[in-house]
Amino acid sequence: MLTVFGSVALDTTRTPFETRERILGGAATYASISASFFAPVSLIGVIGNDFPTSYYKMLADRLDLAGLVTSNDKKTFFYDSSFDYDLSHRTTNITELNAIENFEPPVPSEYVDSRFVYLANNDPDQNIKIIDKFKKPELIVCDTIEFWIENKRDAVIRMIQKTHGVVINDQEARLLCNTSNLVKCGKQLLSYGPKFIIIKKGEHGVLFFFKDNIIPIPGYPLESVVDPTGAGDSFAGGFMGYLVSNRTSGDFLHDLTLMKESILMGSVMGTFAIEAFGTDRLFEINKMNILNRFDLYRKMLSI
Amino acid sequence: MLTVFGSVALDTTRTPFETRERILGGAATYASISASFFAPVSLIGVIGNDFPTSYYKMLADRLDLAGLVTSNDKKTFFYDSSFDYDLSHRTTNITELNAIENFEPPVPSEYVDSRFVYLANNDPDQNIKIIDKFKKPELIVCDTIEFWIENKRDAVIRMIQKTHGVVINDQEARLLCNTSNLVKCGKQLLSYGPKFIIIKKGEHGVLFFFKDNIIPIPGYPLESVVDPTGAGDSFAGGFMGYLVSNRTSGDFLHDLTLMKESILMGSVMGTFAIEAFGTDRLFEINKMNILNRFDLYRKMLSI
Repeated sequence: MLTVFGSVALDTTRTPFETRERILGGAATYASISASFFAPVSLIGVIGNDFPTSYYKMLADRLDLAGLVTSNDKKTFFYDSSFDYDLSHRTTNITELNAIENFEPPVPSEYVDSRFVYLANNDPDQNIKIIDKFKKPELIVCDTIEFWIENKRDAVIRMIQKTHGVVINDQEARLLCNTSNLVKCGKQLLSYGPKFIIIKKGEHGVLFFFKDNIIPIPGYPLESVVDPTGAGDSFAGGFMGYLVSNRTSGDFLHDLTLMKESILMGSVMGTFAIEAFGTDRLFEINKMNILNRFDLYRKMLSI
Repeated sequence: MLTVFGSVALDTTRTPFETRERILGGAATYASISASFFAPVSLIGVIGNDFPTSYYKMLADRLDLAGLVTSNDKKTFFYDSSFDYDLSHRTTNITELNAIENFEPPVPSEYVDSRFVYLANNDPDQNIKIIDKFKKPELIVCDTIEFWIENKRDAVIRMIQKTHGVVINDQEARLLCNTSNLVKCGKQLLSYGPKFIIIKKGEHGVLFFFKDNIIPIPGYPLESVVDPTGAGDSFAGGFMGYLVSNRTSGDFLHDLTLMKESILMGSVMGTFAIEAFGTDRLFEINKMNILNRFDLYRKMLSI
């Protein structure tokens, strides 16, 4: 089982073409739904007393929710943002932490044996506490965001030291490593201890750092983008889900072919996420849609 | 023989780390030197009465200069620019057209049988005139720049209609096609008639459009960038040179494997160009350096 810890949110998302209010969102939502196409997923997080039952049911259909707490006296984490005409720059309008502020995440007893853990963009101190609760983790991967790098830089690095892999976007990597060159960023992040680093570059794909390998993987070229929200989280979920479900030995982190394939699958899941508003497309697609795009992508990339 | 038409310049290039004044530059210089590693190259252009003899000799060592005119009463095209700290944004300080203003490019009689022609960022009307002088071209490729798109949009499109392929950067493609989505740009450019379109995305590689194929190719990850000048022109030269020297039949534009390899080689030449100031690195490297990086790059990209 893959355990995902992170935010479940209500999002108001505005593009120049359409606005959707209080739709299902959150880093852990995207990551866990994306991963659920490949592996059983359990979700640790918190929702508030305003979380619609219909959304809860959508999650419950796909995920083990024993770790999803409902706060009776608080509202759900709320995020309101606007995209520019290019859909490439996002402006935050409102962030209400609500239930996730000072949340003490439980790790249900049935999860402590989880061997695979994905930690979305949480407080690094919280992530460190969570990591220590798992008994025999084989793969712990984290992401982080600008807010934590600026406010808890040392904790972010301590968190990274406790993981097997980091998935991080280009701007965050530059901020954390204090250099604009992404090759230097990747090497620096590897030096903290993880076995691999994936720097996400949005539509431009990723740079994958693994031992002495630096492998650039281009993005899948997409003609229609509706809402870029959740691309990176869906990438992480697809990557983790594919990786843990296709491993053939305990030594799977040394299987370079599997790692590359998992990155391709992560990218594929990211492209589906952004083809419609919020999580709509992730709830529409089936395994066949995913495998078809994966095959097409592989063919594109054969040199 | 590959014929390159475009600017030979004197550049003053300023980075936050170093400034070099009046060094050898120009789109056609980078493209033709880069191509000369793979094929015999003839250069059509103009220099002024201030062009240093040492630079002329450097060009004459590598290129056929029968088409390089010296203007006795004008100075060489001069371009002064500054890069920001990231080396990702360039500001133009001075542009003096000098000899290239109203230049009527000759096509020496020994060039009219050239089957392969690369037209750098020239006035599109001038390029159209030049194209008509070649008797039996098999491969005409052009680039263009923002200045011509803004001032001679219709002529740019008429020029593209007369080529077999276009190499253009992402921002120029967006400007020309009036859409931010590069997949849409590529399709629109193909609809003007060329057999292929290469949209350059700098460090992020290229999108290659060829019939119904859209192929993303990531950039070679480079840790040390000194001066980004000439990356795109060196790409174009390496691409053209490799393509024409490795073709095995008259139908080489349908050889998808060769086209992809040529793009990789273009990228490799672009990375060498930016490792030192101006053209310094292109004059330092040898064929072995190039082939080693090409092999490394191919290995990185094998999925």
